[in-house]
Amino acid sequence: MTLDDLPLRLGVCYYPEQWPRHLWRDDARRMRELGLRVVRIAEFAWALMEPEAGRFDWAWLDEAIDTLAAEGLQVVLGTPTAAPPHWLVDAHPDVLPIDAQGQPKAFGSRRHCDFSSPAFLAASDRIVGAMAQRYGRHPAVVAWQLDNEYGCHDTVASYSPAALAAFRHWLAARHGSIDALNAAWGTVFWSAQWARFDDIGFPVGQPGGALPAHALDWRRFCADAVLAYHRRQRALLAVHAPGVPVLHNFMGLFTDVDAHALGADCDISSWDSYPLGHTDIAPGLDEAERLRWATTGAPDITGFHHDLYRGCGSGRWWVMEQQAGPVNWAAWNALPAPGMVRAWTWEAFAHGAELVSYFRWRQLPYAQEQMHSGLHRPDLERDTGGDEAAAVAAELAALPAQLARLGLDAQALAPRPAPVALVLDFPSLWMAAVQPHGADMPGLGVAMRYHAALRGLGLDVDILPPHAPLQGYALVVVPSLLHAPPAFTAQALALPGVVVLGPRAGSKTADMAIPVPLPPGDLAAGLPMRVHGVESLRPGRQLPLQQPDGQALAEGAHGLQWRDLLAPADGVQVQATYADGWPAWLQHGRWHAHAGVVDAGTLGQWLAAAAAQAGLVTTPLPDGLRLRRRGALQFAIHRGEQPVAVPAPPGAQFLLGGPTLARAGVAAWWVPEGPAA
Amino acid sequence: MTLDDLPLRLGVCYYPEQWPRHLWRDDARRMRELGLRVVRIAEFAWALMEPEAGRFDWAWLDEAIDTLAAEGLQVVLGTPTAAPPHWLVDAHPDVLPIDAQGQPKAFGSRRHCDFSSPAFLAASDRIVGAMAQRYGRHPAVVAWQLDNEYGCHDTVASYSPAALAAFRHWLAARHGSIDALNAAWGTVFWSAQWARFDDIGFPVGQPGGALPAHALDWRRFCADAVLAYHRRQRALLAVHAPGVPVLHNFMGLFTDVDAHALGADCDISSWDSYPLGHTDIAPGLDEAERLRWATTGAPDITGFHHDLYRGCGSGRWWVMEQQAGPVNWAAWNALPAPGMVRAWTWEAFAHGAELVSYFRWRQLPYAQEQMHSGLHRPDLERDTGGDEAAAVAAELAALPAQLARLGLDAQALAPRPAPVALVLDFPSLWMAAVQPHGADMPGLGVAMRYHAALRGLGLDVDILPPHAPLQGYALVVVPSLLHAPPAFTAQALALPGVVVLGPRAGSKTADMAIPVPLPPGDLAAGLPMRVHGVESLRPGRQLPLQQPDGQALAEGAHGLQWRDLLAPADGVQVQATYADGWPAWLQHGRWHAHAGVVDAGTLGQWLAAAAAQAGLVTTPLPDGLRLRRRGALQFAIHRGEQPVAVPAPPGAQFLLGGPTLARAGVAAWWVPEGPAA
Amino acid sequence: MTLDDLPLRLGVCYYPEQWPRHLWRDDARRMRELGLRVVRIAEFAWALMEPEAGRFDWAWLDEAIDTLAAEGLQVVLGTPTAAPPHWLVDAHPDVLPIDAQGQPKAFGSRRHCDFSSPAFLAASDRIVGAMAQRYGRHPAVVAWQLDNEYGCHDTVASYSPAALAAFRHWLAARHGSIDALNAAWGTVFWSAQWARFDDIGFPVGQPGGALPAHALDWRRFCADAVLAYHRRQRALLAVHAPGVPVLHNFMGLFTDVDAHALGADCDISSWDSYPLGHTDIAPGLDEAERLRWATTGAPDITGFHHDLYRGCGSGRWWVMEQQAGPVNWAAWNALPAPGMVRAWTWEAFAHGAELVSYFRWRQLPYAQEQMHSGLHRPDLERDTGGDEAAAVAAELAALPAQLARLGLDAQALAPRPAPVALVLDFPSLWMAAVQPHGADMPGLGVAMRYHAALRGLGLDVDILPPHAPLQGYALVVVPSLLHAPPAFTAQALALPGVVVLGPRAGSKTADMAIPVPLPPGDLAAGLPMRVHGVESLRPGRQLPLQQPDGQALAEGAHGLQWRDLLAPADGVQVQATYADGWPAWLQHGRWHAHAGVVDAGTLGQWLAAAAAQAGLVTTPLPDGLRLRRRGALQFAIHRGEQPVAVPAPPGAQFLLGGPTLARAGVAAWWVPEGPAA
Ligand SMILES: [Zn+2]
Ligand SMILES: [Zn+2]
Ligand SMILES: [Zn+2]
Repeated sequence: MTLDDLPLRLGVCYYPEQWPRHLWRDDARRMRELGLRVVRIAEFAWALMEPEAGRFDWAWLDEAIDTLAAEGLQVVLGTPTAAPPHWLVDAHPDVLPIDAQGQPKAFGSRRHCDFSSPAFLAASDRIVGAMAQRYGRHPAVVAWQLDNEYGCHDTVASYSPAALAAFRHWLAARHGSIDALNAAWGTVFWSAQWARFDDIGFPVGQPGGALPAHALDWRRFCADAVLAYHRRQRALLAVHAPGVPVLHNFMGLFTDVDAHALGADCDISSWDSYPLGHTDIAPGLDEAERLRWATTGAPDITGFHHDLYRGCGSGRWWVMEQQAGPVNWAAWNALPAPGMVRAWTWEAFAHGAELVSYFRWRQLPYAQEQMHSGLHRPDLERDTGGDEAAAVAAELAALPAQLARLGLDAQALAPRPAPVALVLDFPSLWMAAVQPHGADMPGLGVAMRYHAALRGLGLDVDILPPHAPLQGYALVVVPSLLHAPPAFTAQALALPGVVVLGPRAGSKTADMAIPVPLPPGDLAAGLPMRVHGVESLRPGRQLPLQQPDGQALAEGAHGLQWRDLLAPADGVQVQATYADGWPAWLQHGRWHAHAGVVDAGTLGQWLAAAAAQAGLVTTPLPDGLRLRRRGALQFAIHRGEQPVAVPAPPGAQFLLGGPTLARAGVAAWWVPEGPAA
Repeated sequence: MTLDDLPLRLGVCYYPEQWPRHLWRDDARRMRELGLRVVRIAEFAWALMEPEAGRFDWAWLDEAIDTLAAEGLQVVLGTPTAAPPHWLVDAHPDVLPIDAQGQPKAFGSRRHCDFSSPAFLAASDRIVGAMAQRYGRHPAVVAWQLDNEYGCHDTVASYSPAALAAFRHWLAARHGSIDALNAAWGTVFWSAQWARFDDIGFPVGQPGGALPAHALDWRRFCADAVLAYHRRQRALLAVHAPGVPVLHNFMGLFTDVDAHALGADCDISSWDSYPLGHTDIAPGLDEAERLRWATTGAPDITGFHHDLYRGCGSGRWWVMEQQAGPVNWAAWNALPAPGMVRAWTWEAFAHGAELVSYFRWRQLPYAQEQMHSGLHRPDLERDTGGDEAAAVAAELAALPAQLARLGLDAQALAPRPAPVALVLDFPSLWMAAVQPHGADMPGLGVAMRYHAALRGLGLDVDILPPHAPLQGYALVVVPSLLHAPPAFTAQALALPGVVVLGPRAGSKTADMAIPVPLPPGDLAAGLPMRVHGVESLRPGRQLPLQQPDGQALAEGAHGLQWRDLLAPADGVQVQATYADGWPAWLQHGRWHAHAGVVDAGTLGQWLAAAAAQAGLVTTPLPDGLRLRRRGALQFAIHRGEQPVAVPAPPGAQFLLGGPTLARAGVAAWWVPEGPAA
Repeated sequence: MTLDDLPLRLGVCYYPEQWPRHLWRDDARRMRELGLRVVRIAEFAWALMEPEAGRFDWAWLDEAIDTLAAEGLQVVLGTPTAAPPHWLVDAHPDVLPIDAQGQPKAFGSRRHCDFSSPAFLAASDRIVGAMAQRYGRHPAVVAWQLDNEYGCHDTVASYSPAALAAFRHWLAARHGSIDALNAAWGTVFWSAQWARFDDIGFPVGQPGGALPAHALDWRRFCADAVLAYHRRQRALLAVHAPGVPVLHNFMGLFTDVDAHALGADCDISSWDSYPLGHTDIAPGLDEAERLRWATTGAPDITGFHHDLYRGCGSGRWWVMEQQAGPVNWAAWNALPAPGMVRAWTWEAFAHGAELVSYFRWRQLPYAQEQMHSGLHRPDLERDTGGDEAAAVAAELAALPAQLARLGLDAQALAPRPAPVALVLDFPSLWMAAVQPHGADMPGLGVAMRYHAALRGLGLDVDILPPHAPLQGYALVVVPSLLHAPPAFTAQALALPGVVVLGPRAGSKTADMAIPVPLPPGDLAAGLPMRVHGVESLRPGRQLPLQQPDGQALAEGAHGLQWRDLLAPADGVQVQATYADGWPAWLQHGRWHAHAGVVDAGTLGQWLAAAAAQAGLVTTPLPDGLRLRRRGALQFAIHRGEQPVAVPAPPGAQFLLGGPTLARAGVAAWWVPEGPAA
C-alpha cells in the first residue's frame, strides 16, 4: 500500500495567468514538494482564452497545464463562464442581469451574466465547447469544474425581459393552463386572476406582497434555470471529454439552487469551505457564539455542509476550496487559530472527502481578493496555512505504513453510511423563505440546530433529500420538511427506523397551501395528529417546557422561535408539553414529533431518547469536540479552549493524536474488535 | 327586552367566493347558530363581479347574499376597489402607483391603484355604481363598506405623473399664486423660488431634504386625494342606496389619512383591531413591553384606537375586523392567551362598539393570508377564537334577562361621553413626521403616552379633533398639537374645564413655520409663556426632575425624548423643573403645560393633579387592569399575569365576572345608586 | 495695543435676504454692539442676485453690504453656487446630479448640481464672475468664501453621463493607455480587461464589487472634480478681486474631498464646527460616550478638526460657522450645557483661530433649518448663545489691558507649531473606505484615536499631510497611512524626531495593491519588519496584550478592531506582544510601530513612551480637561462633570479663569519664565 492507494488527497487552486510565466515551473515543483496532488485552474480566464469573440488563444493554457503535468500534478479544469469578457457585454448588453429594481448589474467583477440571456448562453456554449474540445482528452485533466459558485453574490435571479419570457414558458409548462395556475396560486383571493401566461410578471413590487405560490414558482424557475445551464455545459463535456468526471463547487449557507438536483448532474460533489467566514456571517448564530468560535469556526457549520454536500450526487465528494488563512469577504476576517487549517483538513477527510483543495496557492496582491490569504504570501514565501498543509501531507505520507502495521488496508478509509439520516429539502427551504411567519425563522437554521444536536451526541449524520433511500438508517430526522412529497411519506411509513419530525413537517402542499386535512397531511399516518395552528415567538419569548404531568423538565428547558399546536390522536403519547398544555413532544411507536424549536439542551435529550429507541449509542460530547467515523477509523476534532479527553475505548490504537486534545487537536484511532464508540 | 334590543352585536368577515358553493348554506347556518348577526362580504371580489371591462356577473353574489339573508343574517357589502382586476391594469398600466424611486408597483396583490389615475377612477365609478345599483335597496344589506383600509401597505402616496399634475392643481388652489406659495414655503431660504406651479415636483430626492412645507403639503394632498376618492364612492351610494349607512374600516397605527375628515363622510366609523399584531410592531414600545404583552396585547393600544375611531364620524362605531387568533403580518405572530378573544370583544363593547365583527369566518389555506387564522380552521372545524366568540354570544343572550332583573333596559348600554377629552390632530402628526427633530419622536407616540397615563388612572377618554366641541369635558388633554387652529384656541380659552398642554403645543403655523410671537402662539393667552427653544434627547438621556424648590420628586422622575424650554410669564406657577432650572410643569389657573416627555409614573401624577382640579376621581389601576364605563355599566378587563381585585364598590351587582379577575378576565357591574367609581 | 491689534475676532453668518429690509440697520448695529467684527453673507442667494438667466439684481446686496459696512463691520462674501436657481435646472435638467441608482436628484434644497455638468459650470462662471466684478474691490469685503461645504449631503459623486465622460478622460490622463490601466487595476483577476477607456463605467453594481483600484480612482476623480471646480471660481476671483483672500468652509467628519489639496488653493482655511451634532453622529463613538458628552461635545472631536483644518492651507485659519445652540440635523439635537458656546469659542482661539464666526445671527422660523438655533431667537430676542458670545466679546475687550499689564503684546497670541505632528492622508482614508476589511475600521477613526490619546497626554498636535515638512517636530505620529508616498518615506527616514507608525502603515501601493516586498514597503528602512498578514476583530474580540516576557501589561490592556502580523527583523525591539506571541509594539531606535488598534489607556502609555523619548513632557489629563497653547498663553478647557485643577505651575498668571475649572470652564495663563507645562 502506498500513498497513491489512499483515497485522501490534497490539492490547491491556482491562477497561473495572474503571475509571471517565469514562476510557473517553480510553483509546480513546490506544489509537488508540498505534497499536493491536484491543481484546479482556469475558471476565471475567459478573456485570456478568447480575447475576442471567436478568436482563441490556448498557448498559455497549454503551457500551464503541461507545466503542472510535468511535475506529476493532476489538473481540474474550470470552465470560465462565471466571468464573461467585456467584448461580450459590449456586443450584447442583455448579458447583464437586471436587479429587482430594474437596474442592470455592471461589468467589472464576476457573475455579471443572466442565465436566461440567449447571447450569454451562445457565448457560453462556444467557450465551453472549444475548451472541452481542446482539453477533453488531455491525460493530466482528471476532472472538470463547470462554472464557479453558481449564484454567488445573489445572482440566481435576474429580472430581465429574457428571464420573464422564460418564466412564463416555465409556468405554462408547469401548470398547463392559466386556469390551473389561477387555481394553484389561489388568485381568487384578491382578484388577482390572470387571463394569459403572458400577463404574469415578477413577484416583486406587489404592495401586499406577491402570492406565495407566485414567489415560490419564481424561486423554482430560477433554480431550474441554473440547473438547465449546468446541464448545457455538461452535455458539451460529455461529447468532448467522455468519461472525465464533472463537478461544481457549491457554497456554504446558500440555498438558492437545489444542490440535490444539481448534484445529480455531477459526477463529483464539491463545496468551498470557509469555516471562519461562515461563522462570521451565518444567520442564527448569536454574537457570543460568533466571538467564541471566531478563530476556529463554530463546531458544526463546517460539518453540516460536509454532510450536506456529501449527500448531493453520486457519492464522490471533494472540498474544492479550503480556507487556509483569513478570508476577505466576511464582515470581520479573523486569523485562524494555530492548527486549525490542519484540523479542518482532517475534519473534511473524516467526513469522507477524497480531496481537500486549498484556496489558494498564493495571495494575490491586487484586485478584489487582495486581502484573501493563501498557502503563500504575495512575496512568494510560505504562509502559516502552507505550513499546516505540509504537516497534513506528512501525516498522509506516514499513513500507509501506520495502517499496514495495524493490518489494515486503504479500504479502512472507505466511507460508510452514517446511522442517522437528516432529511433536507430545498423547496421546503424556499417555502420557509417565502413566508417565514416569524422574522428569525429560516428553514436552514432549524436544520442546522437538529444537525448540531445530533453531532453533539457523537452521532454521525448523512444529510439527504426526501427522495433518497432511507431504509438503512436507524434514525431518520426530518427537521423542517414543509412539503413532504408523497414518495417521501410512503417511504417513511415503510421504514424500519425511528422517525423524528421537527416543526412545520408536512405543513404545505406542493403549491404552498396548507393541506386539508391539516398538517402534517399524510404524515399523520405515521404520527396521528393534526396541527391546529402555529405561533412564532419573538426573540426573548421563552415558553417553559414540562413533563406531561406538570413536573419540571430539565432546568431552563424552553421553546423559542416557533411552535405548532399539535393535537394528537388517541393513543399518541405526550412526552412533554408547554406550560399551557399544548404538547411539545409526541411519540407514537417509532415516530416522534417536536412541536417547535427548543433549546439545544432539550433538543439533545429528545434526540438522545429517539436514538436510544433506534438502538444507537450516544456520547454527549464536551464543548467543542466532534467525532466522525470514516471506514474503520474514528476521528475526533477539538475546537474548545480547554483540553478534553476523547471518548476512545481502552485498547484504541491512535493513528493521529492521542487521548487528550487541545484546541485544534485531531485524533484518529482504531479499535481492534469492531468499531469504537 | 330581547337580544335584538341590545346595541351589541357580533359579526364576521366572510369570503364566499373563496370557498366551494356547496359550503355556503352550511356556513350561513352555523353563523346564525354561533350567534353572529352581521356578515361583511365582497370587498375583494371585483374580478368575479366584473370579469371583463363592463361585463358584470352578479349571479354568485346574488346567491351569496340570499343564502346569508335566508338565515336572518344582515349583510355589510364592501366595494371591491382595493383590488382592481388584471384587465384594468392591462388596458391602463397607469392605474399602478409609482413608488418614490419612480418604479411602478406591481399587480398581484391589492392596493395597486393610484388615487389620481383617471383610468382607475373611471373603472372604480363603474363597478361601484353598478354594485350600488344592484344591491343598493336589497333589504339584507344594512351597510356599505367603501373600499378597504385606504393606504394599507403604504399606498397613500403615488409618485405618478397623474399625481404630480393633481398635486400642482391642489397647490394652486391652496396657495392662489406662486408668490404666495414661495412665501408660505420660505423658498428664499436656499434660492428655491419657483416660477410656476407646473415647475414643482415631489418632495423627494432633494439632497438637503425637501422644504418642510413642501413635504407637508404633499402629505395633505395625498390625504385629500383619498378623501376625494371616498366621497366619490359615497356619492354613488347616496344615489343608489339612499339611507343605507356607509363606513370605512380604518387601520391601527396609521396616520397617512385624516381619519377625522374621512370619518365625517361616513355614517358609521369602524376600524380593524389586531391587538397582538399592533403590539408586535407599534413604534415606541420597548422590547420588554412587547414580550410582556405578546399574547394579550399591550393594555392601551387597543383602547387608544377604540377611543380614536369612536371619535371619528357621527357617533356610531364598529370594530369591522376583530383579531380572532394569530395574524400573519407582524414580525412575529403570537397565539392569543386563552380568553383574550372574548376579552377583546367585551373591551370593544365597553368602549361603545355597536358591532364586533371577527376576521374571519375561516382561515383560507392558500394565498397571502394563509397563515392568518379565523373563527374556523381551514378544515372547517371551529378554532379557539370561534369558541370564544360563541362564549360571548352566550353572554349576550343572557344579558337582557340580567338587565331586566336589575330593572335596567337596553338604554343602560347607551354610550355616554367620557369626562376626559384627548385632542388629536392628524395634520400635527404629519408635521411631527416631516421634521421629527429627535429620531424617536413621532407625534402618535406622545398621544399614546398621554392616553395610557389617563387610562392607568381609571379615567375614560374620548379622543377628538381640535374642531370638536369640548365644552362638556371636565379635563381636556392636548398631548402634541403642533398646529393649534385658531378656532381650537378660541374654544380652549372659553372652556370651563381644565386644559393640559403637552410638549410642542402651538409650535407650528399652518404652513409649518415657527410662530412669532414664539410658541405656543395664541395658546399663550391660556398659559402665559413662550417656548425659547427645544431639545431632543437621545435614548438613555434622562433628565432628573425636581420640585421648584429643588426637593426631589418621586424616585427616578425624569424627562426623556424631548423638552421645550418654557419661559413662563409672571404669575405662572412652576410646579416642577429640570435639574438645570428650566420648568418642566407649569400651571396657570385651569391651564397646565408640560415641557416634555416624562416617565410614565410622573406623567400619571401630573395628570392626576389636573384631574383632581377638574373634580374627577382617579383610581390608579394595578398592572394590566383597565376600566371602561358604557352607559350604566362599568366594565373591567385584565391583561396582567397576576389576578387583581377590581375597584367595584360595595353593593356592585356583577353581570359579568366578579370582584377578582385573572388574566383575560372581564367584569361588568352595576351600582344601584349612581355610577360606580 | 487695542482690540484691533489682537488676532482674535468674532463674526457671524447672516442672511439679510431672509428678513424684512427694515430690520437690517438694527441688526447691523446690534452686531457691532455685541462685539462682532465680521459678517458672512450671500452664499445662498443666487436666485435673488440673478432672478433670470443673465439678469442681475444687485440693489439689495449693495444695500446689505453698505448697511453692514456703515457699522464698521467687515464682510465675507459667499459665492452662491451651492444653490442654483430653478431657471437653470429648468433650462438644463442635466445640472442635477444622478445618484448611484441612476435617479436624478431633485430641485428644492441645495447642492443639486453636478460638478461635471457643462451647463452648471457655465452658469457658475457667470454668477461668480458677475459677483466678483461687482464686489471684488469693495472696501468692506475682506474675504470670499467660494461655494459652501462642497460635498454636503453626499454630493461629491454624481453618476451622470457628464461625470462618466469626464471620468474616462481623467483615467486616460492618469494611466496613459488602457493596457496601463489594466495592469494598474489588475483586471486579469476576473477577466475584466477593458479594451478602451470609453468602455469603463462607474464602480457600482458589479455583483462581486468593483475592482478596488477602480473604486479608488473614482473617488480620486470625484475629489479632483471638486478641486477643479474650486480653482475655476478662484481664477475668477483672482481677476476681479485681486489680493482679497479666498477660503472655503470645510465640514466635520467629512473626507470625500482632499482638504489638503483644496486648502492649498485657499488663502484662509476654515471649517464649520458643530460639536454636539458631530458628537451625536460621529462613527466610532460608543453610545455611552455619546450620552456622556451630549451637551458639551466629546472632548476631542472639535480639537481634531481644529488641528486638521489649521493644517490645510497657508496658515491662516478660521472657524467659519460655530454652533451657538441646538442644531437641527443630528439624529438627536441637544441643548449645549451652559457656558459651552463660550468654551468652544475660546477653544478655537486656543487652537489658533483668527476668527470665530457664529452660525447664525438669528434662527429662521421657516424652511429646512427652522429648528437650527442662532445667536437670536426668531422673535429677535437674544438667545443664550448670543449671551455667551457677548461674554467672549467682553473678555476679548479686556484682553489688551491684561496683556499689557503682564508686559506682553499681541505677538503673545501668535500661534506656534506644536511639538507633535500627526500625519493624515486623504487618499489613504479613501483606500480604507474602499476595502475596510473589518466593518468598523474606517481610517478616520484610527486617526482620531491617536489624536485623542496625544491630547489626553496634554500634548499639542498639528495634523499635516505626508508632503508637509516635518523636520521641526519632536514626535511624528502616523496613525493609518495606507499609502506612504516615496517623498514621505524619504522625509521620514531623514527626520531627527521620533516616528510612530500605526496599523496599516505602508500597506498599499498608489494603485491600491499590497506592495511586494511586503508592507510597510520602503518604511521598513526605518523600522525593519514585514507585515505577514492582518486580521480584523469583530466588536467584542479583545486580544490581551502582554510584555514580551509574558508578564502582564496594565490591567485590561487589549487590542481590538485590527492587527497587523508584524515580523520584525533582527535587532528590532519587541516592546509588547499579543498573547499568541505576535508583536504588538515594536521599537527600533527612534522608530515605533503599533501592530493594531489598542485600548485608549494602552495607546496613551505607548505614545507617552515615544513622547518621552522625543524629550516631550506629558501631562495625563483628568477626564474632560484639554490643554492648548497659543503663543505665550496656555489655555485649558474643561468638559467633565466634576471640577478639576488645571496643571498650571506656581506663579502662573491667569488671564481667564483660575486654577480650578467646572464644566464648561476656560482658563488661560501665562508663566513669567518660559512656557508653562
Ligand atoms: Zn394582461
Ligand atoms: Zn421650470
Ligand atoms: Zn466596449
